[in-house]
Amino acid sequence: MDLLRVDTIDAARGKLEDVCGSIMPRTETVSLHDSIGRVLARNIISKENIPSYRRSIMDGYAVRSRDLGAAGDMVPSFLKITGEVLLGTDSSGLFLEAGQCIYVPTGGYVPDGADAVVMVEYCEPFGSGMLAVSKSVSAGENIVRVGEDVAEGDMLLEKGRRLRPQDIGVLAAAGITEVPVFVPWKVTVISTGDELVSPEKTPGPGQIRDINSYTIAARSTAEGLEVVRTVSARDDDAVIAALLETAKADSDVIVMSGGSSQGKKDMTAELIERAADCGVLTHGIAAKPGKPTITGFDKRSATLFIGLPGHPAAALIVYEQLLIRLWRGMTGQNPEITIKAMVKTNIPSAPGRRTFQLVTLKDGDIPEAVPVFARSGMISPVSLADGFFEMEENREGVKDGDIVEVHLWK
Amino acid sequence: MDLLRVDTIDAARGKLEDVCGSIMPRTETVSLHDSIGRVLARNIISKENIPSYRRSIMDGYAVRSRDLGAAGDMVPSFLKITGEVLLGTDSSGLFLEAGQCIYVPTGGYVPDGADAVVMVEYCEPFGSGMLAVSKSVSAGENIVRVGEDVAEGDMLLEKGRRLRPQDIGVLAAAGITEVPVFVPWKVTVISTGDELVSPEKTPGPGQIRDINSYTIAARSTAEGLEVVRTVSARDDDAVIAALLETAKADSDVIVMSGGSSQGKKDMTAELIERAADCGVLTHGIAAKPGKPTITGFDKRSATLFIGLPGHPAAALIVYEQLLIRLWRGMTGQNPEITIKAMVKTNIPSAPGRRTFQLVTLKDGDIPEAVPVFARSGMISPVSLADGFFEMEENREGVKDGDIVEVHLWK
Repeated sequence: MDLLRVDTIDAARGKLEDVCGSIMPRTETVSLHDSIGRVLARNIISKENIPSYRRSIMDGYAVRSRDLGAAGDMVPSFLKITGEVLLGTDSSGLFLEAGQCIYVPTGGYVPDGADAVVMVEYCEPFGSGMLAVSKSVSAGENIVRVGEDVAEGDMLLEKGRRLRPQDIGVLAAAGITEVPVFVPWKVTVISTGDELVSPEKTPGPGQIRDINSYTIAARSTAEGLEVVRTVSARDDDAVIAALLETAKADSDVIVMSGGSSQGKKDMTAELIERAADCGVLTHGIAAKPGKPTITGFDKRSATLFIGLPGHPAAALIVYEQLLIRLWRGMTGQNPEITIKAMVKTNIPSAPGRRTFQLVTLKDGDIPEAVPVFARSGMISPVSLADGFFEMEENREGVKDGDIVEVHLWK
Repeated sequence: MDLLRVDTIDAARGKLEDVCGSIMPRTETVSLHDSIGRVLARNIISKENIPSYRRSIMDGYAVRSRDLGAAGDMVPSFLKITGEVLLGTDSSGLFLEAGQCIYVPTGGYVPDGADAVVMVEYCEPFGSGMLAVSKSVSAGENIVRVGEDVAEGDMLLEKGRRLRPQDIGVLAAAGITEVPVFVPWKVTVISTGDELVSPEKTPGPGQIRDINSYTIAARSTAEGLEVVRTVSARDDDAVIAALLETAKADSDVIVMSGGSSQGKKDMTAELIERAADCGVLTHGIAAKPGKPTITGFDKRSATLFIGLPGHPAAALIVYEQLLIRLWRGMTGQNPEITIKAMVKTNIPSAPGRRTFQLVTLKDGDIPEAVPVFARSGMISPVSLADGFFEMEENREGVKDGDIVEVHLWK
């Protein structure tokens, strides 16, 4: 029966998306200063024109371009200075008549009647209240039009944007100080195993330090998800079942990381089957690494279950490919930017399985993706790698000279 | 005199590095769970072998490889089952004699005397306490050797590593639970200008909303720096001077963002000259955008001053190129990974100046860098861009078909 639930990674994703349809991430409002890295929960449309007035991009004089005609070094044009715009002062009462000019600093209001600004470098005060201008300008020169940056009704930022500093700048410019964002999923990480000791202890023969609960919690945090707890438990059904009940009450996602032995996998599957009212969705995925992956869903508490493979590389890759991608998909984020790189050796894939290959990148006009091989359970090669690329199930591997798409580790 | 202090961007960086030599970022120790994104302050050498015992990568039977000789489907070999390794239990007393086998789960201790593990799929219990094995194995097969992942004395992670989830996994594996990291610089952001209003207000004619203090604070936070305060102030010398004194007491970096008019630039330079005992280091950089940039240093309080250009794109690029690069350099971080992309149009540079060109990336085997042009003071094109590339001072621009290195916006 279990064999029937071994899915391709795409099928496993599809099942998660199906059950998640009913539990769209909630939204909340945060202040602009707290919005860096958060994911926008709705489209932001500008209610204003930016700039709201015609703005000078130079220190100079507002003029009527036709007044300067063929002004040049040898034959300057003369204009009458009739005022000065001060930054931050309402200059909307000023009006420029033919033959006049008004001083405007960078960023200043360009008075009505003017159609250009001539740089101060080409201007020289001359006699009392006159200005000699030694350059002609075309209409519109050195002026940012009303709404040229953003027009009223423009889409400022789309739902799903993970906010970067300049996006926050756009929101500030448009006066959006309360930002609608998605509430990060709450994640419980449970690592199980009689052989696990916590990192501050020295493992005895047959014992290993718990790695996965640290990497999975850190990966969650790096993505902006909220880690509500990290627990390490012995392989005791009753204890773990109780932990699952507690976690269901306050978590959106429960990540279980056990070993990769058959006994461990069966135990994880049974625990999920009992704790989740929709039971196990996927029991094993056709991926390398990543086969011993289990997913499940509890509808009543709206909790996703993911049982990760025990090997650190596999656990991180599967967590990235299933849960992080699901979060990004549900919140409408754009696909991450990947690096196109060339492999300079033949790398086999696992036939019929999605294969993930760790690589480091070597600089070049087209960077080289140099494979990093991590035997089962090893962590140092994972840390050495810059990222990984994937090979489709029906692909026989990549050949010397092929271009691959490298996902950078976060 | 000011003209003499207009520097190339490399010279401006050099001056900052010189004065910073005396103020290496301090270090502190944080717990492993809090170390994601932090920058490692010293090399980490492993004091142990990982794994500390010979570990099986399969569910299977520990055997002596020569006992299986030419075992195959048709002619299995028979071994005597003499024990079972339980995960997490000290099995170091077990010893495997010729003709024997011992069950070992994935991750389990491989008993002395054995030199390989044969997968459980090729094994079948046979009669009382005997095992039929239908496959031969070579010495070492399915075993991770002691120290194969990490050997005692190996460099685990180098100083300057910005810790990713898998790096935290390596530290966990090696038992490093207190992590030496750099104390993030404390940053005060002061935006000045009579024309600035805070984003929740509607700007009147000649007023604009404060953008830069939001983008610069957000960029600092995204880099892991600590923003101690963000202040917006009117163009009042005495008020700003007092703010600078307060900030000198508790900040490593004071970022001032004023306008780009000549009066504003002079005012910023004078304020830095008075507040910083080493005075102004750079007054203007030969960069486009970014010319009106001012740096200074106060030795007594060990405070860097950076006066940024007023235009949002310029402010962000200069902050990235000067301050963020300085922080990364001082903490020994590797250069960021950039994206090689092809331009499909001619793009001019500003002769004699380092030119930064905003771009979006368009997918392709070699991605295309499509230029984004932002007129002075505009913010929406900056948000549209995926990043920027730079053109050297002596380069005349890039041509259709050239490959450029795109720095992704954070």
